[in-house]
Amino acid sequence: MDALAVVALIGRMVAGFSLLMAVPMVYAIYAGELVADDFLKATATTLAIGGLASLMTRRFRRELQPRDGFLLVGLTWAVLPTFGALPLYLALPGLSPTDAYFEAVSALTATGATVLSGLDTMPASVHVWRCLMMWVGGLGIIVLAVAILPMLGVGGSQLFRAEITGPMKDSKLTPRIADTARAIWGVYVLLSLACALAYRAAGMSWLDAFVHMGSTVSLGGFSSYDASFGHWNSPDIEAVAIFFMLLSGVNLTLYYVVWRERSPAPLWRNAEARAFYLVLAASIALIAVYLWATGAYDSLGAAFRHSAFHVVSIATTTGYAAYDYASWPLFASLLMILLGCFATCAGSTGGGIKMVRLILLLKQARHEFVRIVHPNVVNPVVLNGRAVSDRVMNNVVGYMMTYGAVLVGLTMAMLFTGLDAVTAFTAIVACVNNIGPGLGEVGPAVNYGGLSDVQTWICAFAMLVGRLELLAVLVLFMPAFWRD
Amino acid sequence: MDALAVVALIGRMVAGFSLLMAVPMVYAIYAGELVADDFLKATATTLAIGGLASLMTRRFRRELQPRDGFLLVGLTWAVLPTFGALPLYLALPGLSPTDAYFEAVSALTATGATVLSGLDTMPASVHVWRCLMMWVGGLGIIVLAVAILPMLGVGGSQLFRAEITGPMKDSKLTPRIADTARAIWGVYVLLSLACALAYRAAGMSWLDAFVHMGSTVSLGGFSSYDASFGHWNSPDIEAVAIFFMLLSGVNLTLYYVVWRERSPAPLWRNAEARAFYLVLAASIALIAVYLWATGAYDSLGAAFRHSAFHVVSIATTTGYAAYDYASWPLFASLLMILLGCFATCAGSTGGGIKMVRLILLLKQARHEFVRIVHPNVVNPVVLNGRAVSDRVMNNVVGYMMTYGAVLVGLTMAMLFTGLDAVTAFTAIVACVNNIGPGLGEVGPAVNYGGLSDVQTWICAFAMLVGRLELLAVLVLFMPAFWRD
Ligand SMILES: [K+]
Ligand SMILES: [K+]
Repeated sequence: MDALAVVALIGRMVAGFSLLMAVPMVYAIYAGELVADDFLKATATTLAIGGLASLMTRRFRRELQPRDGFLLVGLTWAVLPTFGALPLYLALPGLSPTDAYFEAVSALTATGATVLSGLDTMPASVHVWRCLMMWVGGLGIIVLAVAILPMLGVGGSQLFRAEITGPMKDSKLTPRIADTARAIWGVYVLLSLACALAYRAAGMSWLDAFVHMGSTVSLGGFSSYDASFGHWNSPDIEAVAIFFMLLSGVNLTLYYVVWRERSPAPLWRNAEARAFYLVLAASIALIAVYLWATGAYDSLGAAFRHSAFHVVSIATTTGYAAYDYASWPLFASLLMILLGCFATCAGSTGGGIKMVRLILLLKQARHEFVRIVHPNVVNPVVLNGRAVSDRVMNNVVGYMMTYGAVLVGLTMAMLFTGLDAVTAFTAIVACVNNIGPGLGEVGPAVNYGGLSDVQTWICAFAMLVGRLELLAVLVLFMPAFWRD
Repeated sequence: MDALAVVALIGRMVAGFSLLMAVPMVYAIYAGELVADDFLKATATTLAIGGLASLMTRRFRRELQPRDGFLLVGLTWAVLPTFGALPLYLALPGLSPTDAYFEAVSALTATGATVLSGLDTMPASVHVWRCLMMWVGGLGIIVLAVAILPMLGVGGSQLFRAEITGPMKDSKLTPRIADTARAIWGVYVLLSLACALAYRAAGMSWLDAFVHMGSTVSLGGFSSYDASFGHWNSPDIEAVAIFFMLLSGVNLTLYYVVWRERSPAPLWRNAEARAFYLVLAASIALIAVYLWATGAYDSLGAAFRHSAFHVVSIATTTGYAAYDYASWPLFASLLMILLGCFATCAGSTGGGIKMVRLILLLKQARHEFVRIVHPNVVNPVVLNGRAVSDRVMNNVVGYMMTYGAVLVGLTMAMLFTGLDAVTAFTAIVACVNNIGPGLGEVGPAVNYGGLSDVQTWICAFAMLVGRLELLAVLVLFMPAFWRD
């Protein structure tokens, strides 16, 4: 373990983070907001601490070992929110340090769970900062999943590297990690630009378009209005949101292949993306009909509109808390949350188990059934035409068991603090899967501001663990990790 | 597929079942109960139909293929309750056919979920029948798990054959299936006798002792009183119940080894049994302290007494609905139900995932963590000193995925019918794991009688699927199973 080399890197990262903080600072000064001072203080503090840490550890800079990588990843996602919380803590009177940290974790993990209410009357610079953190967090997540975790031996690159799909697999597309990261960066920036323009064209102000672009392509789900997309109540704006959430829900490297082939065929050829589209389409239809049949909406058209927006929002783990779907029959809202646990694709900004893991596990389960009927058939699990190695399957099983243990363990911890069952369970599910709003006391009509400090810390931990694909964080809690 | 050969066997089984039904019939006649007539009719009908089916298919009798075995197992557990429900339907006015079938399924699967209230004023013969079905069901379950399912290639005999444990593994103890079944039968009968005598000694009437012995050693949980063990409110009787539930919760073949070695050491040497004892002891202590700290009981002693009885009752999937633990803080009751999902050992009468599967999955997950730190270490999962084959691990993973899918799918189905979340989820968990009472509208203070017909059928299906180790039933729903 080379802790000082890790600190050296984190110092530089914090210093870089202060440049990002300068964006809302400049905006606050430009707009003449009273909170400009707070942003100045926060940015200066962040720059000073990051710069100092970087300078003081200068001579420890060196190539990191894989094991240091885990410490780096864990510390990055735990330390950056501390600084990200600073402007919120300074600019929003009455916000506790715990709540400010929670809000920053929620932003940087693109979870979108909020402790804040009265969003409509807050300084715009606060929203710029919240959604900028979310946007950068989303980018960090994909790079983490596609480039960094596979290098550390977690997650299995086979799951996240869509470019080895189909006929492209021999062309050695973007073979190196830096190239992969660059390709993702390009796709993400283009997607963001298109999204912001589309929101503007659909009727948002430039500021709203920027802020909501940040929470759409990151599948984060923050809004600058308490009513979220209910603020506009506009089918056009919702259609734009649906379109870009769907685009962001699949493996972004697929778009690179689409661009290379000059054809959208790779999106459909990819088993994971195909399952994502089919599951979402079927769920939208089912929930629309269910809502209409149970009388939640008068017309089938209205039921479809609201079903489409909310199913896509929750299933992609974006989690815009609009129109209060908590008042829907429980079947509909819980089905959406269930989708949020697995629907998004690996290599997207989405949270949860990821569709590819579910596909592999279901194939494995189906094999067991086939073996019952034909005991002597031995066939490996196949994905996109390639056999999946035991190594990857074991990793997926390990992930899934850890996922179950984390959900159960953290829900029990929340219950231990005295919460009701629906709130405790949905809060943990919404945080571990980085969805955002849950049901009950953390439902879309209310928020995480009502939780106690202990409950808030549990949820912040849940967001981090879920976001870093579980194993990458939890390995830090293993004694064996720290032994040599 | 040789359906007529299967029917021939089931016919004989139904005819045999009528002999069992003669027990409460004789009791009703002997006690001069008005329902003696109903038992007579039911017994005669069962004997006639079983005998006729057996005679008519006489010439189709032959050795079964493994695939026929699945049909036989599934049909047995679906058909016998139909006849088991007959006396209940006839003797209890106002009981619908759906509810009568549910009650019989609950008995034969040793689930113990009931739709009946007013138990205290029912004819004793009804209770004799309910608990006799439970007792026989319990026996059938172990024979199924230890002898039949491994023969069919489901479940993995390695998980259920405790006798290959430790130093005995070379002694070829009870190598043949018929011998194993006979050994289990012997252990089960001795356990039952001891249990009935102990209940009587602790203060029960002979009738109560018989009835509750049937629901204790089967880990079924029926009672002949609405208040269940609250009827006596006797620490002695509870101690007897706790003792025999604990005895019944481990692999019964272990007692055969204990007898051969003339030492209780095998119980502690067995990794699964050891985990069972440790998990239960820790949970009793935790819940006792929690209940005392939250003020549910005035003294730590009272908290311990109630914690011990209820934790053992629910964790062993017995599910005696005494003292209404539903009024406890949710953390305590949900933790107990969670234990019920996995605590009992394979080869016991308990339901759920079984401790051995959980141990294997946790070991597998831990291996993934170790591989992160030491990527080149290759070590198989080891249980009781032997490496677990990939074949068994794949089977466990397939089981676990199916388990998750069944829980989620059936809970969604219950929500679809309009139930609240806690009732829907705990009803399914309590039925799939064959625990019995859930929480909410199916909690210990109420029961399954309040459910609609559709909900009742879903729960009956859940009990059967859970009891038959999932794969053995669900394979019947695969088109490939029916093709040649
Ligand atoms: K989100
Ligand atoms: K039971």
